[in-house]
Order: sequence, then C-alpha cells, then structure tokens
Amino acid sequence: MNIEARRFEMQKLEALHKLREAIKKGEVDENALEILNFINSLPDFYTTSSCSGRISLFVELGSKPENYWLGKWHREVSLDEILERLKKLPSKGVIWLRYEPSIFHIVAKSLEKAKKVLEIARSSGYKRAGIQVLKEGRFVVEIADTERIDVPIGENSKLFIQEDYLKHLVRFANEKFRKGSRKLKRLESNLMKELKDQN
Amino acid sequence: MNIEARRFEMQKLEALHKLREAIKKGEVDENALEILNFINSLPDFYTTSSCSGRISLFVELGSKPENYWLGKWHREVSLDEILERLKKLPSKGVIWLRYEPSIFHIVAKSLEKAKKVLEIARSSGYKRAGIQVLKEGRFVVEIADTERIDVPIGENSKLFIQEDYLKHLVRFANEKFRKGSRKLKRLESNLMKELKDQN
Repeated sequence: MNIEARRFEMQKLEALHKLREAIKKGEVDENALEILNFINSLPDFYTTSSCSGRISLFVELGSKPENYWLGKWHREVSLDEILERLKKLPSKGVIWLRYEPSIFHIVAKSLEKAKKVLEIARSSGYKRAGIQVLKEGRFVVEIADTERIDVPIGENSKLFIQEDYLKHLVRFANEKFRKGSRKLKRLESNLMKELKDQN
Repeated sequence: MNIEARRFEMQKLEALHKLREAIKKGEVDENALEILNFINSLPDFYTTSSCSGRISLFVELGSKPENYWLGKWHREVSLDEILERLKKLPSKGVIWLRYEPSIFHIVAKSLEKAKKVLEIARSSGYKRAGIQVLKEGRFVVEIADTERIDVPIGENSKLFIQEDYLKHLVRFANEKFRKGSRKLKRLESNLMKELKDQN
C-alpha cells in the first residue's frame, strides 16, 4: 500500500470515528444516515461534515463561532415550536430564520472516483456540486443544494415581525424542506445505483 | 496545437463574443468587469456566466425560466426603489426579496491551472469554490460566496409585510452587499497577484 492509500485509510478511520461519536451524541440527522452509511461502506469513499437540510433559528453575533443557536430542526417545524424558541432572546445580535438545503462532503481516493460522484450529483440536479480539494489520496466533493430561506426577523432582542408573517415563513420553510428532501431521495438512489458497482 | 487546445481556443472566442454582446446590452455589472477582463486577458483562462453580487425582487412562478423579475441591482438600493417596483404585482406567484452574493465561473485549459484558481479562491475566503467540470481543455471552477438573504415578502399580488420591516430588509441587503463587495476586492487582488505570472 503506498503512502497516499495509507493516508486515505487513516483519514477514513478518523472520519468514521467522529461520525460514530456524533451519532452517539444525537448530532447526526437521521435523514442523512442512510446515504452516509452507504458511502462509508464503499472502500474508495468516506464522508465528512454533511447535513440533509435543516430549518434553524439563530442569532448572528458577528463571526461564525460566536453565533447563538435558538433552535435547529432536521425536519418540518410548527409555528408553536418557533414561537417557543423566540420567547427568550439575547440582548444583542440579528435574529435569523433559515432553511438551509442539504450539503454533503464525500472524500474519494482518486480523482476518477471523485469525478464519478460529481457526475452523479450534477445529473441528479445538484448544479452546485464541485471538487473542492485535490490532493493525492484526498479528493473532496461537495454536493450542495441551492434553494434557501434566509430571513432577518429581529435584532437586539426585538422581533421585527408579527405572528401572522411568521406563520407564512414557517409554511415556506417547510415547503422548501419537503422539496429538498424529495431531491435528496433522488440523489441517494442515484448514488446507490451508480457507485455500487464501482468498488 | 492538439484538439483539446483548439477546442479551448474556439470556446474562449465564443465566450468572449457572448461577453461583448452582453456588455453592449448593458447586462454585465460593472463591478465584475475588472476581474472578467483580467481573467480573459490570460491565455490559459476565460470566464463564463458571472455576477459580482446583486439585490433583486422577483416573482417565483414555478420553474426557473418562468420567474418574473421586478428589479435587479448590482449595487445598493433605496427603500423607494424597492417600493416603486412593488406597485404593480402579477396576480400569481411568491414575491421574493433577495441578496445573492458574487459568483464567478472561470474556465482553465488544464487541471493544474484550475487547481491554482481554486486555491486562490479558497485562500481568499471563498470556501464554496470547487471544480465543477473536468474535461480535457475545459476545467470549470465555480467561485461562489455564501452569505445571502432570501425572503418571501408576498404572494398572489399581496405583500405580507409593511414598510417598516421592508426598511430593515433593505438595510440588511445593503449591508450584505457591502460586505460581499469588500470580499470580492480581496479575491480580485489575489487573482491578479497570483495569476499574472502563470502565463
């Protein structure tokens, strides 16, 4: 085994360890698990940070690590759940309601394998897929969906909006979530079909 | 000249022709021109669809080609400009206010050159940059910024929101626009510094 192949194996072991720890803590969304498990079962691939899509409420306090989460859901939400989380707000920062679509990072052992994943992603409708890192033994493909909702709904502990508008936002976020989930099913089935015979 | 190199030259000529036509029609935003002209001046690169960031109002009528634009601005906007465009609304569809960050597509002649662009983009803070197409003589790098605003503000010719909230949204959109423009300057200067000696 050459040095790049050995590095790939070491990094895969480490990534799988992290994934198991995250699963134990309940930090991995169940909708993503099937696709992650399938990819990780293939000798020439593994996954790193991935998410099947989520609705969230958070407070932007400046740079990213400082962001304050009010709630994250890898599923549809109800107006009541959102209202509940908006009862106690930090005194500073911009409050955002978001729907972020799915994002997957798949590491391939070779450029050829990475290209294969990229082609499957693009033909499944993920036009923003691309190879982000190209190192021997470490080719990282990012597959990200595009449709989002990013709404600043308040600032410095005060909401700009009323419940009737929040109701519309929740409806749109849930709609996008459902649409994203359907698209993800297509990606999942195409990856399973096309990568099964690659190894 | 081999067949891939010839194909690259033909496709570059075609892309430059399209760009000139778009400039004549006033469809290319001026903030992007400097970076596009620089890239296109290099023998081993050219640009395809690119945008330096924009604030827009549009009506989502279903699939993309059917979308109805109420306004697009490659600059900061005023509340009055937005209000003006919201006076006449089509009877159907969801009305969105958006800020979309910069997105550039750079075609490189070789994988090595594409990797170089990718590295410059990533070290300039564009974490979502990736190589999307890998064909001999055609390696396409997408450089896309991430921070967005995507707000559904009305539906079926009725607005959900009042002027006071719209004022906040315009403020946030302009803020993101300024932030995106500053980041773009950094990318521009890094590309110029690092690619100048590549050809």
